[in-house]
Amino acid sequence: MAGKRKIRMGMVGGGYGAFIGEVHRKAAGIDGEIELVAGAFDVDPAKGKEFGVKELYLPAERSYGSWKEMIEAEKKLPEGERIDFVTIVTPNFVHFPVAKAALEAGFHVMCEKPMVLDVAEAKKLQKIVNKTGKVFALNHNYTGYPMVKLAKDMVKNNELGNIMKIIVQYPQAWLIRPIEREGQQQATWRLDPKRSGAAGCIGDIGTHAENLAEYITGLRLTEICADLTAFVKGRPLDDDGNCLLHFEKGAKGILHASQISAGEENNLAIWVYGDKASIEWHQEDPNKLFLKKVGNPVEVWTRGNEYVGKKSPLAAKGTRTPGGHPEGFLEAFANNYMGLVERIRACDAGKKLPATAMDVPDVNDGVRGMQFIDTVVKSAKSKAKWVKFPK
Amino acid sequence: MAGKRKIRMGMVGGGYGAFIGEVHRKAAGIDGEIELVAGAFDVDPAKGKEFGVKELYLPAERSYGSWKEMIEAEKKLPEGERIDFVTIVTPNFVHFPVAKAALEAGFHVMCEKPMVLDVAEAKKLQKIVNKTGKVFALNHNYTGYPMVKLAKDMVKNNELGNIMKIIVQYPQAWLIRPIEREGQQQATWRLDPKRSGAAGCIGDIGTHAENLAEYITGLRLTEICADLTAFVKGRPLDDDGNCLLHFEKGAKGILHASQISAGEENNLAIWVYGDKASIEWHQEDPNKLFLKKVGNPVEVWTRGNEYVGKKSPLAAKGTRTPGGHPEGFLEAFANNYMGLVERIRACDAGKKLPATAMDVPDVNDGVRGMQFIDTVVKSAKSKAKWVKFPK
Amino acid sequence: MAGKRKIRMGMVGGGYGAFIGEVHRKAAGIDGEIELVAGAFDVDPAKGKEFGVKELYLPAERSYGSWKEMIEAEKKLPEGERIDFVTIVTPNFVHFPVAKAALEAGFHVMCEKPMVLDVAEAKKLQKIVNKTGKVFALNHNYTGYPMVKLAKDMVKNNELGNIMKIIVQYPQAWLIRPIEREGQQQATWRLDPKRSGAAGCIGDIGTHAENLAEYITGLRLTEICADLTAFVKGRPLDDDGNCLLHFEKGAKGILHASQISAGEENNLAIWVYGDKASIEWHQEDPNKLFLKKVGNPVEVWTRGNEYVGKKSPLAAKGTRTPGGHPEGFLEAFANNYMGLVERIRACDAGKKLPATAMDVPDVNDGVRGMQFIDTVVKSAKSKAKWVKFPK
Amino acid sequence: MAGKRKIRMGMVGGGYGAFIGEVHRKAAGIDGEIELVAGAFDVDPAKGKEFGVKELYLPAERSYGSWKEMIEAEKKLPEGERIDFVTIVTPNFVHFPVAKAALEAGFHVMCEKPMVLDVAEAKKLQKIVNKTGKVFALNHNYTGYPMVKLAKDMVKNNELGNIMKIIVQYPQAWLIRPIEREGQQQATWRLDPKRSGAAGCIGDIGTHAENLAEYITGLRLTEICADLTAFVKGRPLDDDGNCLLHFEKGAKGILHASQISAGEENNLAIWVYGDKASIEWHQEDPNKLFLKKVGNPVEVWTRGNEYVGKKSPLAAKGTRTPGGHPEGFLEAFANNYMGLVERIRACDAGKKLPATAMDVPDVNDGVRGMQFIDTVVKSAKSKAKWVKFPK
Repeated sequence: MAGKRKIRMGMVGGGYGAFIGEVHRKAAGIDGEIELVAGAFDVDPAKGKEFGVKELYLPAERSYGSWKEMIEAEKKLPEGERIDFVTIVTPNFVHFPVAKAALEAGFHVMCEKPMVLDVAEAKKLQKIVNKTGKVFALNHNYTGYPMVKLAKDMVKNNELGNIMKIIVQYPQAWLIRPIEREGQQQATWRLDPKRSGAAGCIGDIGTHAENLAEYITGLRLTEICADLTAFVKGRPLDDDGNCLLHFEKGAKGILHASQISAGEENNLAIWVYGDKASIEWHQEDPNKLFLKKVGNPVEVWTRGNEYVGKKSPLAAKGTRTPGGHPEGFLEAFANNYMGLVERIRACDAGKKLPATAMDVPDVNDGVRGMQFIDTVVKSAKSKAKWVKFPK
Repeated sequence: MAGKRKIRMGMVGGGYGAFIGEVHRKAAGIDGEIELVAGAFDVDPAKGKEFGVKELYLPAERSYGSWKEMIEAEKKLPEGERIDFVTIVTPNFVHFPVAKAALEAGFHVMCEKPMVLDVAEAKKLQKIVNKTGKVFALNHNYTGYPMVKLAKDMVKNNELGNIMKIIVQYPQAWLIRPIEREGQQQATWRLDPKRSGAAGCIGDIGTHAENLAEYITGLRLTEICADLTAFVKGRPLDDDGNCLLHFEKGAKGILHASQISAGEENNLAIWVYGDKASIEWHQEDPNKLFLKKVGNPVEVWTRGNEYVGKKSPLAAKGTRTPGGHPEGFLEAFANNYMGLVERIRACDAGKKLPATAMDVPDVNDGVRGMQFIDTVVKSAKSKAKWVKFPK
Repeated sequence: MAGKRKIRMGMVGGGYGAFIGEVHRKAAGIDGEIELVAGAFDVDPAKGKEFGVKELYLPAERSYGSWKEMIEAEKKLPEGERIDFVTIVTPNFVHFPVAKAALEAGFHVMCEKPMVLDVAEAKKLQKIVNKTGKVFALNHNYTGYPMVKLAKDMVKNNELGNIMKIIVQYPQAWLIRPIEREGQQQATWRLDPKRSGAAGCIGDIGTHAENLAEYITGLRLTEICADLTAFVKGRPLDDDGNCLLHFEKGAKGILHASQISAGEENNLAIWVYGDKASIEWHQEDPNKLFLKKVGNPVEVWTRGNEYVGKKSPLAAKGTRTPGGHPEGFLEAFANNYMGLVERIRACDAGKKLPATAMDVPDVNDGVRGMQFIDTVVKSAKSKAKWVKFPK
Repeated sequence: MAGKRKIRMGMVGGGYGAFIGEVHRKAAGIDGEIELVAGAFDVDPAKGKEFGVKELYLPAERSYGSWKEMIEAEKKLPEGERIDFVTIVTPNFVHFPVAKAALEAGFHVMCEKPMVLDVAEAKKLQKIVNKTGKVFALNHNYTGYPMVKLAKDMVKNNELGNIMKIIVQYPQAWLIRPIEREGQQQATWRLDPKRSGAAGCIGDIGTHAENLAEYITGLRLTEICADLTAFVKGRPLDDDGNCLLHFEKGAKGILHASQISAGEENNLAIWVYGDKASIEWHQEDPNKLFLKKVGNPVEVWTRGNEYVGKKSPLAAKGTRTPGGHPEGFLEAFANNYMGLVERIRACDAGKKLPATAMDVPDVNDGVRGMQFIDTVVKSAKSKAKWVKFPK
């Protein structure tokens, strides 16, 4: 009676003062399928090593001074001891080199978004993933929410009819003051084009909105009209963006994102209007999905009920607590890790991924995200109304 | 001890099958300041006369066969008996001739929006109003809500700081099917360019959104980028519109309106973001105003409380029931009539309007509304990103 | 082609500083079916007469110095000129004598609640109503809301199954400080047993909760266990009450009401649980009714939609504006006046009330309300758990 | 540079088909402070052993056949290898013997609620805890929510003034049909007095409501008037309960709980009314706390903001994601484990618990819970209005 074993994670980034690395560790810890066994947590080797040992109880020899060191050392360890995958939670500009090295060393990868710095890098990475055959997951965490999966299935099952209009938004307030000049770690790199890429707000959170819209509707953007602004004087990158959208099949829409909208926390929300019904979902109240059928009372679908599972097996699968016991951000994150683990197990066993496997964004979503940033930035500089989205 | 008297209303339009005329009569009846004494309710003289007598208990001699007849007859009646003002609740194309005739006959006017058919007519009417010196009120009813007046005062008192971003929306669902081809009276004229003007959805409800945004913020639009669509095949006018907005002083925004958005009823809503705070208001939940100050809990201001009146005397003045006893659409309407009555009393007495008088939109707002429709329609046809709003 | 005429109202109470009289006048004005033609607005004859003339534009001769004077004078006027009914909006202790005199003089009556001072008076009034055959309407205004009528019809149509549990509440905050000692007019008489009756909070608003529960469910209370408190020291009447309830057919419940609950405005709300489904309704958000069927998404029914009218003709009939254009307190009030007017027209014409007539509470509801107050007060003084509700 | 180590957990119960055991494992996994190293997951030894190995990747030798076996074997392992604490997630009747054995074997304990079967057992356990000096935590998980901790601190800081009224509720729907007769595992033992204790609904979830009310207000119950019902025919234990409450210092209240309320999921909610302000909190929307100060707009405090931490250090400490990234049930649970871990570390190091340690319910809360059940059941059988709560 020999059980399977846990999947072993090595982390790059996520040391003292980091935000998203901690979230990854907690999310990965929820389901008992993953154990953190190694990491390179900081650009400062000493600080990174100390962090791993003191804060995460790692053995000193696996709390590495750099990601290169980690990849070199881990690949020499025997199977069954070495890490199975690398989680990349660094600023954007480090994503590509770590991902490349990890994949080429034979490790699977979970990577934070936006995937890389530009479209060219994204396409290079796409080739590397395809060549190595390793699992590459991109952490667009919001599509991990069960009710988002239900929304996708409702669209797929034609319960909304033909999609006509899509409104998606992601307003925040945290950059309303120039905190990047006060040394706030999260703000500083995000507003530095070298470390963050060609867009600020649109790159950081606009991409989540774009990903959510395409994920739920299955419709691809065809052209964009963008209006980007840095409301806080002196910023080299946008802190706010408003876009008109054209999708395939005649659907139209609006995407707006902001980091200077007083009182907004993480107010990602989406409305999808079809000719039979519409849906509405709010990330800040994620356990509900509103379904509005023409001529009928609004229906409030709540996570954790049997009727949800009947429409969307993945919504049910990605649910850990009963209806009325709220799930949140960490559980959505954990669903991406669930998808990663299932892919790693299948890949390493040389088996096909089961039809019931949890889904998770991949390198192609990452390419699309970089194209979105690229198109929005081009449009923002253009006097023409529409800029085509690359096919 | 001689009391003042009620103000006498004559109505044009609003007979059998009409919607907004009935709303006007009910709203005008709430405060006991106005009595309906005459009307010409239908293009069909017999039907109109019957309606006035049977449904409204008017004497047969003042239930007129046409608006021309009404104006002719009423102006011959002695003061103290004849109507004081005309309420125009017909389809758009009739607004101009009735308003012109009424003003020139010495009557005040309450006119439904959009004011007239195009900018040229609007400017003609503006001159007539200025020349006759009569009161002309335009029924942008949504600015009649007390919490909208509070919002305006908050902006004016600089509680939001510099306005950076404005989102305003007005989605409905009622034209999701081609009911204009099934003889639905409201839909038929609204989708006929000859009776409705150059825009459909944008003219009917987009103008409300525009008016609300300018009313609350005091900022004027400077340029627009519009994307209009007739989602229901064969419609000569738009049933949906998405716009990017530029305002004075660097503020930017989004306006979207729709009449094909499943499940939406009259979901007019606005978010105004300043560098100190933001506000949020929803017409479907109109007794609340959300105030979100940077770094503080969200405040929910509710109509009818003393703290509202301290910030906004007009919000208090336009309030009829205590907090927690909801007011709605009719009361907002009635506030426009309150403003009209105060203007008529002051004008007829040759007095200055008291500083405490209720406000009400006027012919200049109407000109602006027509310019908005004109600019949006131009932009929708243009390949350039921005079309200037006329000064 | 002679039209019907408006119904003529005479008002008792509702002068300077009054609250509910003004609400009655506005509500009665909405539908254009009623005209206020006379009144006795104050215990001080001069103030009352002045009020009627200056504020309501009544002719001096019909702005009476006392209600007795009004009834005497009006009954001498010819039919077609004299008032048709008397609206009583005085403090409670004046309800009985005015109602008696009005009915016996041949006038119909609309009376504020609670109906009278005690059960004995209530039964006397019941006999007078029955004997005179006049219309007597009691203004439990909250049952005038369309969605309450829908709720009642859902229960009647067995959509909830057998009712098991009922929670009803009515918390307010306005008496949290001893404002009755600071001369606040509304508070002073309500907390004086001679003018208000045996209960404070329970009489003023607990009766609304009781009436709402019995109206919607059709179930009658059988026994009560009450805990009344005057939290503000020195009050002779309760300002807060908590009750356990037993209804017919084994249903159980809770009723709580309060006038010292900080932050509550008029938070009347009800939950009715059956073995098939439950409903939830909030007076402060009155255009929605939540229907929760076992094993299904929650349904949000909103006023003004066709699907509402299919289930509840009276909900549709009592609706004046389309879905998404909120209605409120005044419109609910106006529905009671609609029911009154229909009864008066039928009674005066000697006809049977049409099956489609709007409903309105009557003298029997008033008797029941007085029995409720009586039972609650008895229970509050008792050491036994249950006190029977009289049959 | 030697780091601390993770705390080692052994679990009793929580095998195939169990609900709460899985929740404990996930919650304990979030913060990376605890590792599950042993367990006895089922009354059937073979099934339990298989579960541990196959589902949890435990080594076969530490997936025990019974809890007795586990405690015996683990206590023989060297420190640094053996479990540090036992988590008890069995049906209620097993809590006492396991807790007793574990404590007496030198292990700390995390125990599900209700703590034991009756007051006598509770007091015995209290003595054992005191005698052994081991950490005993009781999993009243709802007090783990950050906004509940903020609520408690607001009361403590006198921001509400004197507490006058407390309403607490916990309605569910899951037992609306007799699923215990269809073999539903959760329902079967909960409705069996031998395994569950003297109360059904009141024991299972009424105790959460009681614990929440006393936790937030710091006021202790003094007497209760209870009305318990088994609405589903044939149940030996209540599935619904309504209670009037008296607290210390004159506060009064209502507690109601139900498992037959259609459409309710886990609608635990509380309203606490003081003479300066009130608070309102809903478990199903746990990231918000409403603060309502007399005469001011309602404030919506949201988890994850700096202003929360200024008022409540524990609310901040128990927060893992920023405002607007919702946390839920698992994170509240994890806060109880955080308190447990801090207590275990302090206890084992012979140090005083730091003042900044996370709080967690203990054996005294468990005694109180059993007294609550006992008092409610007594009251339900009594004809007297009030039954005293033991001191």
